Amino acid sequence: MHYVDLTNELREVARGTGGDGILHTFLPHTTCTLIFNSGVDGTTLQDIRLFIEEQIPVDRPFVHLHDGPQDAAAHVRCVFGVQSLQLPVVNGELGIGHSQGVYLLELDGPRDRTLQYAVQTF
Amino acid sequence: MHYVDLTNELREVARGTGGDGILHTFLPHTTCTLIFNSGVDGTTLQDIRLFIEEQIPVDRPFVHLHDGPQDAAAHVRCVFGVQSLQLPVVNGELGIGHSQGVYLLELDGPRDRTLQYAVQTF
Amino acid sequence: MHYVDLTNELREVARGTGGDGILHTFLPHTTCTLIFNSGVDGTTLQDIRLFIEEQIPVDRPFVHLHDGPQDAAAHVRCVFGVQSLQLPVVNGELGIGHSQGVYLLELDGPRDRTLQYAVQTF
Repeated sequence: MHYVDLTNELREVARGTGGDGILHTFLPHTTCTLIFNSGVDGTTLQDIRLFIEEQIPVDRPFVHLHDGPQDAAAHVRCVFGVQSLQLPVVNGELGIGHSQGVYLLELDGPRDRTLQYAVQTF
Repeated sequence: MHYVDLTNELREVARGTGGDGILHTFLPHTTCTLIFNSGVDGTTLQDIRLFIEEQIPVDRPFVHLHDGPQDAAAHVRCVFGVQSLQLPVVNGELGIGHSQGVYLLELDGPRDRTLQYAVQTF
Repeated sequence: MHYVDLTNELREVARGTGGDGILHTFLPHTTCTLIFNSGVDGTTLQDIRLFIEEQIPVDRPFVHLHDGPQDAAAHVRCVFGVQSLQLPVVNGELGIGHSQGVYLLELDGPRDRTLQYAVQTF
């Protein structure tokens, strides 16, 4: 399980819109997920990773076996996050809390992933 | 626990909007939930069902007992999904990944359910 | 763990918009979360609280230890809810189900919290 901190990139996207609105983000994948949490450092992400891996270990029996148990586990692990996330844009800046971070968690090893997004101003 | 694959119906809703936007979906119920996951076949949904039923069995003690333990379990099981889900519309088509599916999970037996939706173009 | 029922306040926000739209809600914090569930009384919230505390007890080992184990537990417990939630506005009223309620769950003891929101009409 790997994660990428998206917070600074999303701040850049919001910056310059010059007003209020919503930044829609979306993951077109089935083994990764978006998580909102403490952005102070990566330790909370480690706690979340340990919890999720403990809840749904790779050696659990799975019905879905197209691509092996690690892929099957990753699909189920997605229930702990979301693939679609809306972020506030306030006065041309990402309107999130000062200690919040937005992370992409890939639950089936490192992979090339795409984050779709669109900004909608009010 | 029963599920309905909403992917094709939502593709139809998005089709013909002729542009970019957001498809807002919403479940006005308290025992069902929306899940985004592998749409290749139903096996991942079976894995998710088994995991959720194992986490929150019907014979667990519940405080909420208005309509019996199956209803009480269904309420708590909703924490694994969402009732409000935003889907991207890209160039007049549902902009989700090729292997993604959108499912309604009814966590308290089969019931008649309504999905509310609205398309908002940018 | 404490919760606040936001349903009536959000009904007031939606009321008077005079049309259809989306009420965007957002929590700029990292130890609380939004939950949609049965609004008949608080018993389902108690069931959810007991489940979450059982899943992630305070005496679990955590990597994140900036502010003690209760804070660390609260961060991880957030995986069971969302910080960003979109609610339908239908004909100038909050368009949720008659038995649904929207709750803020503070997972690290009672604290002063802010809910951000914005109404967007179609």
